[in-house]
Amino acid sequence: MKITDISVRVFTHSSREVKDSDGHTHPGDPHPVRQALLTITTDDASQGHCLAPTEVVRPFLIDRFVKVVLMGQDPFDREKLWQGLAHWQRGSGAMLTDRTLAIVDLALWDLAGRKLGVPVYKLIGAYRDKVPAYGSTMCGDELPGGLATPEDYHNYAKWLIERGYKAIKLHTWMKPVSWAPDPKMDVKACAAVRAAVGPDIPIMLDAYHGYSRSEALWLGQQLQKLEFAWYEEPMNEASISSYAWLAANLDIPVIGPETADGKHHTRAEWIKAGACDITRTGVHDVGGITPSLKIIHLAESFGMDCEIHGNGVGNLTLCAVQKNGRWYERGLLHPFINYDDVPEYLNARGDAMDADGFVHLSQAPGLGDDINFDYVNSHLV
Amino acid sequence: MKITDISVRVFTHSSREVKDSDGHTHPGDPHPVRQALLTITTDDASQGHCLAPTEVVRPFLIDRFVKVVLMGQDPFDREKLWQGLAHWQRGSGAMLTDRTLAIVDLALWDLAGRKLGVPVYKLIGAYRDKVPAYGSTMCGDELPGGLATPEDYHNYAKWLIERGYKAIKLHTWMKPVSWAPDPKMDVKACAAVRAAVGPDIPIMLDAYHGYSRSEALWLGQQLQKLEFAWYEEPMNEASISSYAWLAANLDIPVIGPETADGKHHTRAEWIKAGACDITRTGVHDVGGITPSLKIIHLAESFGMDCEIHGNGVGNLTLCAVQKNGRWYERGLLHPFINYDDVPEYLNARGDAMDADGFVHLSQAPGLGDDINFDYVNSHLV
Repeated sequence: MKITDISVRVFTHSSREVKDSDGHTHPGDPHPVRQALLTITTDDASQGHCLAPTEVVRPFLIDRFVKVVLMGQDPFDREKLWQGLAHWQRGSGAMLTDRTLAIVDLALWDLAGRKLGVPVYKLIGAYRDKVPAYGSTMCGDELPGGLATPEDYHNYAKWLIERGYKAIKLHTWMKPVSWAPDPKMDVKACAAVRAAVGPDIPIMLDAYHGYSRSEALWLGQQLQKLEFAWYEEPMNEASISSYAWLAANLDIPVIGPETADGKHHTRAEWIKAGACDITRTGVHDVGGITPSLKIIHLAESFGMDCEIHGNGVGNLTLCAVQKNGRWYERGLLHPFINYDDVPEYLNARGDAMDADGFVHLSQAPGLGDDINFDYVNSHLV
Repeated sequence: MKITDISVRVFTHSSREVKDSDGHTHPGDPHPVRQALLTITTDDASQGHCLAPTEVVRPFLIDRFVKVVLMGQDPFDREKLWQGLAHWQRGSGAMLTDRTLAIVDLALWDLAGRKLGVPVYKLIGAYRDKVPAYGSTMCGDELPGGLATPEDYHNYAKWLIERGYKAIKLHTWMKPVSWAPDPKMDVKACAAVRAAVGPDIPIMLDAYHGYSRSEALWLGQQLQKLEFAWYEEPMNEASISSYAWLAANLDIPVIGPETADGKHHTRAEWIKAGACDITRTGVHDVGGITPSLKIIHLAESFGMDCEIHGNGVGNLTLCAVQKNGRWYERGLLHPFINYDDVPEYLNARGDAMDADGFVHLSQAPGLGDDINFDYVNSHLV
């Protein structure tokens, strides 16, 4: 079995999400956007797919790197292929990123699952068939009735609990919100959510990522009083020492890293340095399922939980194969957007959630995205 | 898909291996021995198998622990089932050992591979299709022309190179050999092998496991002069501090642990403590493929190689899915025994080696043991 083709389809669909100047997502008016679908095909006509942002699978990335490593190879040689791409990153002048590795790796896993007729989480070896989700809000904004005030978070938290979420993570206000960041406003939003949901619902905070040590410590101390479940990335993650200092000075679990470069190697250094109480991986942060399994296993070896960052069927698959992690991150959520709506390019959401707050793993072969190929093919750019 | 039966067949075959009072294997006259075959069966008549020592799959272990955790469960829920057995170990009063977990885990992986029609190493995600083997000798003995003198090791090393091995590991003299252990005799055997094979063949030593710190340091210093590739378990592995001290005082890579209790958790502590330069796992040491993958991934996260301990298709599978390890351990070998002989209960060896010293992974579905079921069934106890 050999890989004979790697193709990228770019198609348009309607979106209500817009990005601010910091890269954060907010609600907006419906508008057409471009999305990509990477497809790996073999000589026996097996295929694996992965949806991707267009910039992550640009033609020159596929031609110059991905095809050179993958074409003619056995798609089941995932470790070899992933190591081949990872090895080339150094020489690529930073062009070949973990984001691209992730899409390729996810498509290879999807191909394996589809070829063998099993969901990928069963192929890896399942720990559970459903995962409790926390509702993860978009960042704060200045939209009236949106997430503009602590009261907005309070009201939205009540709705999230009604919807079935058993935990909530706030993303609070960041630039370019005119007055942000502001640790005191973060605390007001956190207190408003705690008041809305009562003492028994786990709440987490992911606030501004550029606070000073002093600001980060003060904010963490307030979260402790509010009995938050974890505290996420308040400082630049390039400084492991800052996080070791923060974790030593707080009782609330410090979780990380998320955006720090270096895949599983960076997580190992964080754990060794005591820079986190819970570690993290997300398929798009570290280059796919293959390296994320290394991180989950690294963490378990040290008796540490590894919570999964980000949504999507790749991350849901990770949640389903680990004992040392609790939640699936569902979102990003906002009062103006119905996350449960099915995008036009899917026949069904891969992370549909029941009324009890559980996301059930798809039993279809592959990673679990039920792609509407007719839609994709009729909306090609 | 549900597990509906877990059975153990005990059968007899002829063996030329005998155990001494320290548990080490030596050649002996042909004699009948008992061996077990664990079989897991599902409601769709899928089966997974694993050969095992009879004591590891005794009926009370299967009835009291394994069946309680596995019966009625999906055999693809390997992580859940492994964690379930591992959790029960604490309460089992040390009856449920990693050796039993390993056999069950291997049978579950074998079942998955057979059901899906792929070799297990492809299911996990392959890194390579063939693995270079080192010839791993039995422990020294007092058999004339066996492994009784440095000259015996010298002569046997020459034969191993002729056979195709590209590296050699000596197990030297231990109790109950009358005059053993003796670090100076270890060095003589090592020097004799180095003289036999020249400067370019990697050689490793696994000597007596109860040396003092001073003896272990002196022996390691001599191995450095002989340019050995690694140095294995010269002291009691329960003392991590001893190994951290030894590794700090030697340039030769110290490898471990092998027999220390605690699975991936112990490897994490060794790595964090600097107690090894290369770490290890073997399917029978830590409870199967599932925890061994955690250890391989832990080691890679720290930029460390993880060499695989022990022979057999489970360990060979690990070798085939890792970048951070070089060798398959083929043996144990002795001048009086032809390791290439196929045991009566197999149709072919799972670790057949070509003339260049490579062991090729079986392309048959499952773990790779080509079991002669007719032989097994006609030699039941």
